Amino acid sequence: MSKDTDNSNLTADNSANTTSSPSNDRSANNVAPNEVTFALAQSHFLVGDISANADKMRQLAIQARDQGADVIVFPELALLGYPPQDLLLRPSLSGRIKSALSALSDIQDIVMIVGYPHVDHHGTFNSAAILHNGHQKGFYHKQFLPNYGVFDERRYFDKGRNQVLFDYKGITIGLLICEDLWEKSPIADLKQQGVDIIVSLNASPFETGKQDMRKTMLTQRSREHKVPIVYVNAVGGQDDLVFDGGSIVAQADGSIAHEAPRFLDQLMLATLNVDSNTFNTQEKAPLTLSRESEMYQALVVGLRDYVNHSGFGGVLVGLSGGIDSALTLCIAVDALGADKVYAVMMPYEFTSKISLEDAQAQARRLNVSYTVCPIFDAVEGIRHTLAPLFNKSPADTTEENIQARARGVILMALSNKFGHLVITTGNKSELAVGYSTLYGDMAGGFDVLKDVYKSQVYNLASYRNRLEDTPVIPERVITRPPSAELRPDQKDQDSLPDYEVLDGILTLYIDEDMGYQAIVDKGFDADMVAKTIKMVDNSEYKRRQSPIGTKISQRAFGRERRYPLVNKWSINS
Amino acid sequence: MSKDTDNSNLTADNSANTTSSPSNDRSANNVAPNEVTFALAQSHFLVGDISANADKMRQLAIQARDQGADVIVFPELALLGYPPQDLLLRPSLSGRIKSALSALSDIQDIVMIVGYPHVDHHGTFNSAAILHNGHQKGFYHKQFLPNYGVFDERRYFDKGRNQVLFDYKGITIGLLICEDLWEKSPIADLKQQGVDIIVSLNASPFETGKQDMRKTMLTQRSREHKVPIVYVNAVGGQDDLVFDGGSIVAQADGSIAHEAPRFLDQLMLATLNVDSNTFNTQEKAPLTLSRESEMYQALVVGLRDYVNHSGFGGVLVGLSGGIDSALTLCIAVDALGADKVYAVMMPYEFTSKISLEDAQAQARRLNVSYTVCPIFDAVEGIRHTLAPLFNKSPADTTEENIQARARGVILMALSNKFGHLVITTGNKSELAVGYSTLYGDMAGGFDVLKDVYKSQVYNLASYRNRLEDTPVIPERVITRPPSAELRPDQKDQDSLPDYEVLDGILTLYIDEDMGYQAIVDKGFDADMVAKTIKMVDNSEYKRRQSPIGTKISQRAFGRERRYPLVNKWSINS
Repeated sequence: MSKDTDNSNLTADNSANTTSSPSNDRSANNVAPNEVTFALAQSHFLVGDISANADKMRQLAIQARDQGADVIVFPELALLGYPPQDLLLRPSLSGRIKSALSALSDIQDIVMIVGYPHVDHHGTFNSAAILHNGHQKGFYHKQFLPNYGVFDERRYFDKGRNQVLFDYKGITIGLLICEDLWEKSPIADLKQQGVDIIVSLNASPFETGKQDMRKTMLTQRSREHKVPIVYVNAVGGQDDLVFDGGSIVAQADGSIAHEAPRFLDQLMLATLNVDSNTFNTQEKAPLTLSRESEMYQALVVGLRDYVNHSGFGGVLVGLSGGIDSALTLCIAVDALGADKVYAVMMPYEFTSKISLEDAQAQARRLNVSYTVCPIFDAVEGIRHTLAPLFNKSPADTTEENIQARARGVILMALSNKFGHLVITTGNKSELAVGYSTLYGDMAGGFDVLKDVYKSQVYNLASYRNRLEDTPVIPERVITRPPSAELRPDQKDQDSLPDYEVLDGILTLYIDEDMGYQAIVDKGFDADMVAKTIKMVDNSEYKRRQSPIGTKISQRAFGRERRYPLVNKWSINS
Repeated sequence: MSKDTDNSNLTADNSANTTSSPSNDRSANNVAPNEVTFALAQSHFLVGDISANADKMRQLAIQARDQGADVIVFPELALLGYPPQDLLLRPSLSGRIKSALSALSDIQDIVMIVGYPHVDHHGTFNSAAILHNGHQKGFYHKQFLPNYGVFDERRYFDKGRNQVLFDYKGITIGLLICEDLWEKSPIADLKQQGVDIIVSLNASPFETGKQDMRKTMLTQRSREHKVPIVYVNAVGGQDDLVFDGGSIVAQADGSIAHEAPRFLDQLMLATLNVDSNTFNTQEKAPLTLSRESEMYQALVVGLRDYVNHSGFGGVLVGLSGGIDSALTLCIAVDALGADKVYAVMMPYEFTSKISLEDAQAQARRLNVSYTVCPIFDAVEGIRHTLAPLFNKSPADTTEENIQARARGVILMALSNKFGHLVITTGNKSELAVGYSTLYGDMAGGFDVLKDVYKSQVYNLASYRNRLEDTPVIPERVITRPPSAELRPDQKDQDSLPDYEVLDGILTLYIDEDMGYQAIVDKGFDADMVAKTIKMVDNSEYKRRQSPIGTKISQRAFGRERRYPLVNKWSINS
């Protein structure tokens, strides 16, 4: 591996209003190196903590250099963390970023490509800086700003208008940021300018199946333009988003030379043979994850990082004996360790013996703290308080909600007293149709299964059980009909279609954004479709007050699906 | 008033890729009319209900024509309602809009300028259609799409690129939509093309002082370009936004010829003398509203429209004897009428006699249903349930939260049983610093004072009391020190700075987006600023689960202020 620290070797031009062009002087004054090693810094950078992120970059750069890297590439906007949301509007942002960039300037002998927000008199940009031996050699501004789905980039950023290429050790490197590469023109423009290799900085949030889409796209782009691509992704959880890593190096023929593990911090090195413009491929590719496996890992990372970064010492989960809380408990234990998970079973009159047994079995198999706290007194006290006002009116869902809310009050009191975060167990199917009690089972800080349909809950429970010789979730929890146990012999399917059917309709309506007629045309019963859509629309106010939870689908509730509460759209007008 | 129904008189050209130019043939074939009457349809259009909105347009158009109008102008996007949010992504949108526009085509003898979402193979646009005698004569696409504050227009819309002018009865009319007029170039471009008058369609949400800003802007624009402007605004509440009307006709010299009332539906007619290009100004200008008056009216309209459009028969409010619930009760009564407001006082051990007396006095003076529901049994039951787990640990805020949550459970149970919407009474100061209990006093569907600082609550209470000979809020409620009454002799100022100071810091930090140092430089105590900022940042998770409430400030919590929950930004790095 040859190393060349002569600055004259690194040239970039990105004056604001002209398209830059690389120097064609390919290391004329030096012995031509025949290799350049890239370090892909797939790492977790905390939103807002600019100085800590800069420190992490320093450490990674030194580590990479010591391992022989010539260039280290950080994820999109890594210096500030992603997505920073309205922190981008803070007046002191520009000063903090400048200090952090200058604190990186004493790193010698490695080129650093740093994602950061660039603020100047032209505007605010989502940018990548090229830093080398104390000098800022240039910067690139993202050209395509996503403003759909979870993204609000046009709220903050101005559009970059220039290509940026720079020469280093005989190769011409072109920069792109995330969305730029999903569009066709930016890489085509760089190719036309004579780029040898593309470096792409990303903060691409996890969706089930997304890594396959990324690989397909990278293969297409690199093959079409006969140019290798270094694709660096962020990793770790930030509120409802999980960045799943899986950074990739694609060869000019479209094949994948390297792929970093998913969901893990990794400093991955990849060495380019300059003469052939191909990457060595000595590293073993990581295992491809099954759908269940990647969903499960995303849920684990999302919960783990939210809890740890919020500073909670543990989590509190209400077990019902049912499958949602059983799976939630598994995820919590896998995220935080059994010693940080506290399970509480809160039985009432309608809680079955089976539920009590199964809740206890789950807690025991996972070795977590388990407490039984019957809520008779709480419910009785509330009902007694209400009795003069209710005046012997017949029982209805009010009384069911009181049970659920008594449990919510108990969990929140335990949280207040002992400092653990209450995690909730509601799934996407329930949340979609409003089959849940606001301030009751919805009370808590993080809803682990918020974006997981009930039928996926079953799949994930079976997946988790297959990981160990002794299933951690008793088989009976998976096979018995689901029930909220809020009245005698209640079953979810008294109020809802079978989950298979319900989830089919919900997936089309929510994830695919299809309308009533289109869903009916897919073969679903018209009345059931109409009823389901109405339940979804009428539950918007509940969802608005629900805790966050990890996005795993292509359309998660929350910032990705923005509907009015007062909404007079009807299925048939 | 002359009327001319000859279509040849109306010409528009807005082919997609060229700048249109008006015909210069000023009614050569007709006797030149000397007046054109514009009807400004300041009216409430429901989000999503396209066919009902079209019906309303028909009725208004016929009414306006019968009153002698030549042209009727509807607000921005009125056919779909504003803001429609992700309804704009619905696949059936385009078909529904086309049907609705064609249903308007049998309106004869009046030009209709209709705000609507335009979907074609070029994209989706925020548009205005020119309809006349069954023909769509042209359409204009909004050029400047706001994507800041409460606005997400670039999530949905593509940018219009053309000016649109059309000739009618000897004058050349240019179209602009909302943000277009706040920018300098669109009106300048129209002027250059020879426009005689600007018609501007708006859905401009209320902020305190906003109408003054609108008038200042309209005066500047019309005077600078020597062109009159017809400015039509929407009216009514939609979730957290209130559109406050106040439509305006500005003369070419910058003076205001007509101003419609604020917060009310109004079909306002304004007649242009074509020869002088000035408006007759026979109508009396409405009273200018004081700051308190416009804030109060916005709160009334916001609550009224949310409750009515959500289909609730009434609202339920927990009275504490304090000023927040006292003011909330006034607003509820003014919004819905006393017969639709149900007040409940829920005393506990720490509730003072004064509070009981004052709550009852408020309810009596406003003539609303009033019930006292002591919560001893509910709190006792909950504490008894928790006792084995709490194991004699000393009382702390946990026990205070239990009281608040017991009240939340009671209110929600009454809501479930009797179908009234629970409205909450938390103010912006409390919500900012987290001085409130999630699922307790924060439980409910609409937070009336969500965007009202505590010091503004006092101003509004005094304002409301001045409206009647006998003050509806007992004077003692305004003068006694505020207390949550969750422990003996508790005062808000045990935990918080004086509200005057706190609100000063909060206004700078939240509404003005200033940072720590800038606020300290304004003369506030550094420790108090640091403590306040920390409380605000740490309460983001509570706000995320809070009910909506009417925006009255320039930076309301909710869609206008988007912060991460995990946020490592510190005041001094």
